[in-house]
Amino acid sequence: MDVNQLETPAAVVDLDRLEANITKLQGYLDQHGIANRPHVKTHKIPEIAHMQLRAGAVGITCQKLGEAEVMAQAGIGDIFLPYNMIGEARLERLTRLARRANLSVTADSAFTVTGLSAAVGRAGLELPVLVEFDTGLGRCGVQSPHEAAELARTIARSPGLRFGGLMTYPNNEHTDGFVQATGVLLQGDGLALERVSGGGTGCMWQAHTHPEITEHRAGMYLYGDRNTMRSGAMTLEDCSFRVMCTVVSRPTAERGILDGGSKTFSSDLLGLEGHGHILEYPEARFYGLSEEHGHVDFSACRRRPEIGERVTVIPNHCCMVSNLFNEVVGVRQNQVEVIWPVAARGTLH
Amino acid sequence: MDVNQLETPAAVVDLDRLEANITKLQGYLDQHGIANRPHVKTHKIPEIAHMQLRAGAVGITCQKLGEAEVMAQAGIGDIFLPYNMIGEARLERLTRLARRANLSVTADSAFTVTGLSAAVGRAGLELPVLVEFDTGLGRCGVQSPHEAAELARTIARSPGLRFGGLMTYPNNEHTDGFVQATGVLLQGDGLALERVSGGGTGCMWQAHTHPEITEHRAGMYLYGDRNTMRSGAMTLEDCSFRVMCTVVSRPTAERGILDGGSKTFSSDLLGLEGHGHILEYPEARFYGLSEEHGHVDFSACRRRPEIGERVTVIPNHCCMVSNLFNEVVGVRQNQVEVIWPVAARGTLH
Repeated sequence: MDVNQLETPAAVVDLDRLEANITKLQGYLDQHGIANRPHVKTHKIPEIAHMQLRAGAVGITCQKLGEAEVMAQAGIGDIFLPYNMIGEARLERLTRLARRANLSVTADSAFTVTGLSAAVGRAGLELPVLVEFDTGLGRCGVQSPHEAAELARTIARSPGLRFGGLMTYPNNEHTDGFVQATGVLLQGDGLALERVSGGGTGCMWQAHTHPEITEHRAGMYLYGDRNTMRSGAMTLEDCSFRVMCTVVSRPTAERGILDGGSKTFSSDLLGLEGHGHILEYPEARFYGLSEEHGHVDFSACRRRPEIGERVTVIPNHCCMVSNLFNEVVGVRQNQVEVIWPVAARGTLH
Repeated sequence: MDVNQLETPAAVVDLDRLEANITKLQGYLDQHGIANRPHVKTHKIPEIAHMQLRAGAVGITCQKLGEAEVMAQAGIGDIFLPYNMIGEARLERLTRLARRANLSVTADSAFTVTGLSAAVGRAGLELPVLVEFDTGLGRCGVQSPHEAAELARTIARSPGLRFGGLMTYPNNEHTDGFVQATGVLLQGDGLALERVSGGGTGCMWQAHTHPEITEHRAGMYLYGDRNTMRSGAMTLEDCSFRVMCTVVSRPTAERGILDGGSKTFSSDLLGLEGHGHILEYPEARFYGLSEEHGHVDFSACRRRPEIGERVTVIPNHCCMVSNLFNEVVGVRQNQVEVIWPVAARGTLH
């Protein structure tokens, strides 16, 4: 089947580019002796996770327990969950998963550690717990090496848990100093930094400039989008992921309406202008979204589309878009090769 | 099961409020002799659509053919699809659906009408097609009564189609004038305005001020959100839909992190400040979203939450949020009464 026979909107991945992106990052990280632990939140597709592992990844990263469950069901055995796991039902599921998979998690508070220990300790397991630290994102994470060391000690003395090292996102100029200072504080405790897990797609080609990082988590690198293009980490030619839409209305000479809106593209702007880059009309301004309509101003384009014409959109944020689709279509030279259910889509728990 | 035993993030609907909202709009529209044709894109749950029909709705509205297919499979027989149906595969599916359900659609171009006629005409059906007109939204729709009349004539002479009237969104001060002018232009053709379909939740209580409107499409009125509150159409007490989250991190004295981010709340701002209203902490500022983390500033709150505490969030845009969940939980007096799969979720085709 030709890609142009797909109903729109369709989420399409060019398999040649996808494979090239997987190979390129793996090669770079191998060259620098950094373990590759890709973040599957971007694609949520078990077969792609297996492609990443076959290329040399040491394991995968999931953001939600439900994602990890889907991946374990697909036979993936090494899963990192860099998220505070909180709540009785969730900890019960986590413990079940820890029996089947080589699981590791993070914590940034004694509260999280206490819960993990109570759940996993009862089960007679030993779960590696990394301390999450924050050097600028302002999300989760302990705020100082002193806090990190204190939490590491708490983990180390908690039944069922093992101090697994440190985790941060994204890597930046404060990362190595924070890690080194924490390492010094822990020397007297005999606690080594088993892993130092960094992450980010925008900063992935600088991973080797962080001597303390032992593994890297990138998600978007295999798809690419306008956001990763802006970061300079990927070019338009690298982007394997796109959304095919149909022009369903041309109400005025300038305006064209696509059959994809915020339920297709998400509303993520990430500081960008507009909601996507239209390959066939690079001068077009994708200025607005309704839920199922995309609003495009074609006034800057010499040629303008007819109703019924198909266009190809590089979205702002591929992670959000793939999570909105039931299926992603893998194509090679514009021929459909595989239709993947987005198996871990909507796993919010 | 108590609502507080649900894993978070959880999309929860208070059934008493849901039923009250359904009853209230139905009563208002009945009082004014306007047909109620609720838009199911908000909930995408067949059982709720049946509740709306039992309350007195004449039929439902769907935004995508896939939604309509799910609703027809659930036994719903009268479906309006106010969307340009374009593309061979889609028109084939539309024709199949038109055999089973009392279907009507819209068009704003001869291109759409030609496709509809070719597909439906072959099948020996008569499909009502309403002309979509635009009086300010700047999305789809013909731009003038002359265009509307011309397209109405095209529909009327197309095999398999019947001119079904006019459709717009949202109702505004130009609606009635546009309808009247179109009606005058069509008098000589013997073409009556069988239906004039208006829509919107923000403007729903003004539907009676539009003498030309014969039916109204509202979607959000049964859930409510910050956007419908801002419009003045609903109060906080009317809102039946909310998202329960857990505070998973308190990295600083001010900052709290929730276990719901842009994959839970969507990034829709709709011109609002922040990403949601936290019932337990009304002074909190829900200022940021990562994909699976919500960033909240609690500095204005006298009491601040502990890690592990649950909070209840009224989101900005309920339609986007329910589309991100696999299930919506119906509760009465905080006891779980039903867990509904969001059956038509992700129906982008």
